[in-house]
Amino acid sequence: MSESTYDVVKVDLSDGRDYPIYIGTGYSEEQAAEMLSSHIEGSKALLVTNDRISPMYLEKYESLIRQNKEVHTLVLPDGEEKKTMEVLQLILDKALEVGLDRKCTFLALGGGVIGDMVGFAAAIYQRGVNFIQIPTTVMAMVDSSVGGKTGVNHPLGKNMIGAFHQPQCVFIDTDNLSTLPDRELQSGISEIIKYGLIRDADLFEWLEENMDSLLKRDALALRYAVKRSCENKAEVVKADEKEAGVRATLNLGHTFGHAIESGSGYGTWLHGEAVAIGTAMAASMSARMEWIDQGLLKRTYDLLEKANLPIELPLDSPMNQATFLKYMAADKKVANGKLRLILLKGELGNCEFTGDFDEGAMVETIDNFVAECQGAAV
Amino acid sequence: MSESTYDVVKVDLSDGRDYPIYIGTGYSEEQAAEMLSSHIEGSKALLVTNDRISPMYLEKYESLIRQNKEVHTLVLPDGEEKKTMEVLQLILDKALEVGLDRKCTFLALGGGVIGDMVGFAAAIYQRGVNFIQIPTTVMAMVDSSVGGKTGVNHPLGKNMIGAFHQPQCVFIDTDNLSTLPDRELQSGISEIIKYGLIRDADLFEWLEENMDSLLKRDALALRYAVKRSCENKAEVVKADEKEAGVRATLNLGHTFGHAIESGSGYGTWLHGEAVAIGTAMAASMSARMEWIDQGLLKRTYDLLEKANLPIELPLDSPMNQATFLKYMAADKKVANGKLRLILLKGELGNCEFTGDFDEGAMVETIDNFVAECQGAAV
Repeated sequence: MSESTYDVVKVDLSDGRDYPIYIGTGYSEEQAAEMLSSHIEGSKALLVTNDRISPMYLEKYESLIRQNKEVHTLVLPDGEEKKTMEVLQLILDKALEVGLDRKCTFLALGGGVIGDMVGFAAAIYQRGVNFIQIPTTVMAMVDSSVGGKTGVNHPLGKNMIGAFHQPQCVFIDTDNLSTLPDRELQSGISEIIKYGLIRDADLFEWLEENMDSLLKRDALALRYAVKRSCENKAEVVKADEKEAGVRATLNLGHTFGHAIESGSGYGTWLHGEAVAIGTAMAASMSARMEWIDQGLLKRTYDLLEKANLPIELPLDSPMNQATFLKYMAADKKVANGKLRLILLKGELGNCEFTGDFDEGAMVETIDNFVAECQGAAV
Repeated sequence: MSESTYDVVKVDLSDGRDYPIYIGTGYSEEQAAEMLSSHIEGSKALLVTNDRISPMYLEKYESLIRQNKEVHTLVLPDGEEKKTMEVLQLILDKALEVGLDRKCTFLALGGGVIGDMVGFAAAIYQRGVNFIQIPTTVMAMVDSSVGGKTGVNHPLGKNMIGAFHQPQCVFIDTDNLSTLPDRELQSGISEIIKYGLIRDADLFEWLEENMDSLLKRDALALRYAVKRSCENKAEVVKADEKEAGVRATLNLGHTFGHAIESGSGYGTWLHGEAVAIGTAMAASMSARMEWIDQGLLKRTYDLLEKANLPIELPLDSPMNQATFLKYMAADKKVANGKLRLILLKGELGNCEFTGDFDEGAMVETIDNFVAECQGAAV
C-alpha cells in the first residue's frame, strides 16, 4: 500500500494515448479539483450521472470541476434497461443545446451503465471528444471504466452498439463505495474473482483469505483489490486494445452471463451476478472437458459463494437450452458463425479463448444448469 | 489516362490501414465481383442503398457480391433529411436481425448520405466492423466516400454525431453517373472546384477549360476530374486523418454552406449548391480582407457559374445575419468558443485555416449576401 493518498496505474497504449487510473481515498478538495481539471483539455465540461448517484455525489463533483472549468450537468434515469440509444441521445442533445464544441470534455459519474453511455456519447459527439471516468461502483472501478469499451444495449443483445474510445483518466475515490448497496458491491467482486481465475492466482488466493474484509468494506482491502484489478486490466488492454485476442479472456463467464441477462429481462440480475453464474458454468464446462480438475472447480464455486454471489439459476428462471443458444449465437465473440468461449485450462490462473471446444460439453453444461433451476436432477 | 479499365489511388494511413480507391469504367462482371469480394474479409455482407438508387443498381451489386459472399440488402429512404440517428438504427436493426457478427462487412451503395450513414453504422456496430464505399454520385466519388468521415445530422446541426471510420476500399464506376440528375452532377462539381481553389491551381485551370465536357458527362473528363480529386483528398487525409489541421481546409465554403443548409431547411439545397454559395462568400470575404485580388474572386465566381452553381442566395431565402451567426457558432471547427474559417489567401491554389480574421469583414460579407437576396444593394 502506498503512503500517498492515491496510487496510479498507467494504461499504456500505442500512439502516446497513455492515461492514468488514480485509485485513492481521502482526497483533499483542492487536490481532486486540480487532478480532474488537469485532464480537462478545453474550458467546458459536461458532467453526467444518474438519478441514484445524483443526490449523493453530483453537487460535490460539480463544484470541484467548477473551480477551474465551466461545467454543465445532466442526470439520466438509472438502470441497465436505460442503457439505450434513446437515453444516450439525451447526452448528445444536452451537449448541443449548451453549445459544447469539439474541445469539450464529458465526465461520467456513476457505475458501468453511466460510464459506457457517456463514453460512447463522447466517442460520437462531433466525431469524438475527450472524456473522464469517475466510477462509483466496484464493477466500474475494477472493470468497465478502464480500457475504453463503450456502448449501449440493443433489444437483440447487450452492448451491440458502441465504440472503443479511451478516457483521458479514470478517477477513483474508494470512499464513494460507502454508499454502494451490498448487492452492487458483491456484483463488482465477481469481476475481481475473474482476474484471479484467468490470470492472477495470487489475487485469487488473496480473495480466498480476505473476502470477509472486502465484504465489510475494509478500506485497505478495497483499495488493494481495486488496484490489483486495474493492474490486470491495464496489462490486458495494453496487449490487445481492440480485442483481437487476449482481451477476450476478460469475458470469462460473460457469454453465458449475457445470455442470462438478456434472457431473464434487464433488471432481474445485476451484471456481476449474471457473470457469477456464467463463471460457474464456464468452470463447470471446463471441468466436464477435463481442462481443469474438480479441486479448482470447487474452489471457484466456494469463492463465488463466499462473495454471496449466485452460482446457479433460481427456480423461477425463464432460461432454457434454446434461450441460452439463441443469445449465445449473437455474442460479439462469434466469428464467421463460430462461437468462441473463454474456458479455464490447467492450473489456477490460466484460461483459453477458443472456438475449439466440445460442443456436447457446452450443451450438457447448459442442460445441467437449466435442470437445476427446474428442480430436476441430471 | 491509364490504359487499364481502372486507376487506383491509394489512401496511405498510419498503422498499415492503407486502402485503395478504384476509379474505373466498363468493369467486367467477373472483375468487379472479384475486386469487391477481395475486400470483404468475412463471409457475410450487408448492402445498403436508398429507394432512388435501388431500382437502378441494387440488383446489379447484390448479384456481384453474391457470387462470392452471403449478402443481405436494405433500402433506406432517400434524402439529406433522412440522415438521422433514427434511420441509421434501421441498419443496426437489420444487421442484428440477420445475425451478422463482427467479421461482417457493410457496403454503402449511393451518394454522400448513404455513405455517411452506412459508414457510421459500421463504426458502431459491435464496436466496429468493416465497410466498403460504392459511391454513385460525383459528390460521393470526389469527396464524401474518401477519408473516413461518417455520421448523421442532428436537429441542431449537420454531421454533429459521427465517427472517423475508414473503409476497406472505395469502388468507383463512373458509368454509374449516366443516371445522375444534372443538379446532382453540378452539386458534386462544386467540391472539385474546391480542390482547385485550396490546393490545385492546375485542376482549377483544367476546369476553366473543360467545364463543358464535364457537364456533358464526357467519360474521359469525368474520370480525370474524379481521379484528380481523389488524389487531392487522399493527400490531405494522409497528412491529417483526424482533422487536427490541414484537413479542415477541405471545408472551404462549408461553414457558410452548412449554415445555409441548416437555416434553409433540408431539401431546399443540395450540399454542393450550398457549398457553392458558401465558397462565393468565403472568396468574397477573402477579397474584402485583401487576402486575394479581385481577379481571383471573379475567376471563382465565373467557374461556379459555368458549372450552373448558385453564387448568391435566392430572393425568397429565409437566411439573415442572425441565422448565419447562430449556425456558424455551432460549427465543428469552433474551438474553445472561437470560430475558425478557411479563407483564400495569395495566388490561386492557396488558402488558410484560421481563427485570426477580421470579424467585421465576415459580418459585412454575410450582410452583403443577405441584402442581395432581399433585393437591396449594400
